[in-house]
Amino acid sequence: MVVLNVDLGEHSYPIHVGGGLLREAELLGSHITSSEVMVVTNETVAPLYLDTLLGCLSGYQVTCQALPDGEQYKSLETLAGLFDTLLAATCSRDTTLIALGGGVVGDIAGFAAACYQRGIRFIQVPTTLLAQVDSAVGGKTAVNHPLGKNMIGAFYQPACVFADTDTLLTLAPRQLAAGIAEVVKYGLIRDSSFFKWLEDHMTRLLARDQDALQHAVIESCRHKAAVVAVDEKETGERALLNLGHTFGHAIEAALGYGVWLHGEAVATGMVMAATMSQRLGWLDAVDVQRIRDLLTTAGLPVDPPAALTVANCLEHMAVDKKVTAGRVRLVLLEEIGQARLVSDYPDALLHEVLAGST
Amino acid sequence: MVVLNVDLGEHSYPIHVGGGLLREAELLGSHITSSEVMVVTNETVAPLYLDTLLGCLSGYQVTCQALPDGEQYKSLETLAGLFDTLLAATCSRDTTLIALGGGVVGDIAGFAAACYQRGIRFIQVPTTLLAQVDSAVGGKTAVNHPLGKNMIGAFYQPACVFADTDTLLTLAPRQLAAGIAEVVKYGLIRDSSFFKWLEDHMTRLLARDQDALQHAVIESCRHKAAVVAVDEKETGERALLNLGHTFGHAIEAALGYGVWLHGEAVATGMVMAATMSQRLGWLDAVDVQRIRDLLTTAGLPVDPPAALTVANCLEHMAVDKKVTAGRVRLVLLEEIGQARLVSDYPDALLHEVLAGST
Repeated sequence: MVVLNVDLGEHSYPIHVGGGLLREAELLGSHITSSEVMVVTNETVAPLYLDTLLGCLSGYQVTCQALPDGEQYKSLETLAGLFDTLLAATCSRDTTLIALGGGVVGDIAGFAAACYQRGIRFIQVPTTLLAQVDSAVGGKTAVNHPLGKNMIGAFYQPACVFADTDTLLTLAPRQLAAGIAEVVKYGLIRDSSFFKWLEDHMTRLLARDQDALQHAVIESCRHKAAVVAVDEKETGERALLNLGHTFGHAIEAALGYGVWLHGEAVATGMVMAATMSQRLGWLDAVDVQRIRDLLTTAGLPVDPPAALTVANCLEHMAVDKKVTAGRVRLVLLEEIGQARLVSDYPDALLHEVLAGST
Repeated sequence: MVVLNVDLGEHSYPIHVGGGLLREAELLGSHITSSEVMVVTNETVAPLYLDTLLGCLSGYQVTCQALPDGEQYKSLETLAGLFDTLLAATCSRDTTLIALGGGVVGDIAGFAAACYQRGIRFIQVPTTLLAQVDSAVGGKTAVNHPLGKNMIGAFYQPACVFADTDTLLTLAPRQLAAGIAEVVKYGLIRDSSFFKWLEDHMTRLLARDQDALQHAVIESCRHKAAVVAVDEKETGERALLNLGHTFGHAIEAALGYGVWLHGEAVATGMVMAATMSQRLGWLDAVDVQRIRDLLTTAGLPVDPPAALTVANCLEHMAVDKKVTAGRVRLVLLEEIGQARLVSDYPDALLHEVLAGST
């Protein structure tokens, strides 16, 4: 097991990464300060891992809720249901909330923890690659609104993150690929040698080689923790983690949440960002092709869905959180391993890329 | 005009108190850092003060929403409506949200500001005495749940508070009295000489003498700011500000929100706390009578509603945020001007007080 630290002063916390963590009752218990525990999971994860987790929680007064599975349930309505459960069980402000699942479960359970009685203790137990490498680390919690993704939420740090890489063995191939999109992102924005490593090890990752998966999770968490430590509230560098996300959010919103997975939309969004970077004269054609190839090898889409129109995309981008002073700020690539936040791009270029960049 | 400071490090902010503040466009503008402004008010306050406030906001891109008036609308449903408005107006993360109204408007608008795009800038313009002396200061925001008051919320500090005491001239007498309950609270928990001043000046306060009102608002804000500065997240001393609130919340929840005003329930709750303090041998009968008399002079109820049963009350107290390790913590009085947080009281005594303490 490897332990990484997210360095945020009094809000610092450890990320545990390794196989078999879900059976480490003592380690988990060391992070629970209350007798009351609420576990939030979903209907896919519950049959696989809930009993294992509950095996660590004998002696606690545990309430469980399994949400329906899917991004379309990351809503205010589902959130309200969690509050109903917490209150019906008369959970006090001392309750520890544990999120067992992927990004949707972690985001919504984390936001519930941020708001319930103005904030209760919260532990992330991510069971998807996407959650382990991205959403469970860094304290971004949210639900979606029909008019925009993650529009309602809070910065709220967990007390710890438990990333058991054994859980990746049961992940559907499409979900594994979606997580790989976020792993590739760290290479693109911060670490060209990690990108190269991914090119060399993609086959092993897809075969779920435990060493390769653990290396990918650890390197990703290391990058995420470093960025969050210097910019928790996303006033600067943290925005670079949104590579592909502005385009990606527009794809998700335009198609309806849950049609494409978040990671799939991000993969295509990263290719759109790379294409736009190439048109600006930054990235060369060879590197754009390397990005397309790596994502394609991972089984990810690299072209926008046919149903996406320029107008539709611009409309959804206009409400994205990256809008400042009326301009959509985009994360683009100067080279592989080096990202940059850009507002002063020609609008015509953006329209061209949206119209179809291949 | 008097300026007080809430000292919270990088989250410090000023409270402006005085007459005519709603016309101080330059002062207000100095606290707005964006071109986009969203004003949240209610249907009672809007006809009285919205135009005046908007007079300060020419040159900004302003969206307004007037909520229905009343505690029963401090709900997740109303909150969702605010998010709809913010998103329909494509308000960005740079938007400044202004709450113009009483405690309900401030609490719900503040919580909307805390959650929208994970937090936008927020200004409190309280127009009721209760909001000016209590709810607009200190960063507690929330909505109610059918099973408990203020159960869903955030600690989220405003960028400034604008308390225009002229707005108290149009306040309904019942609303004025409700605010006085919170003013009396500061005397009871922290300042016996201020309690004495209130005994001497209650008639002038009820006659809306501007000097008396301003003194009451300033002294109350001074106390609130001092308490919040040492304990923003209510891990200690701040809990003393809840004198009368645990009983009061149970009254409000049991009757249904909006039947009794919050301040009315707090007034009765403070008398219940005083009675329990007397039974514990702390407060003497003369002081309990002084408290009853002062609140009665202010036009406030001092006895629980006949419809409130002990069982009903205990049920609602059990989900109150002041529950720790299964015990309801109560704020009681050692003497007028000196409060204390208590968990180790005899249950039988609590039941007696709930059964009717007069």
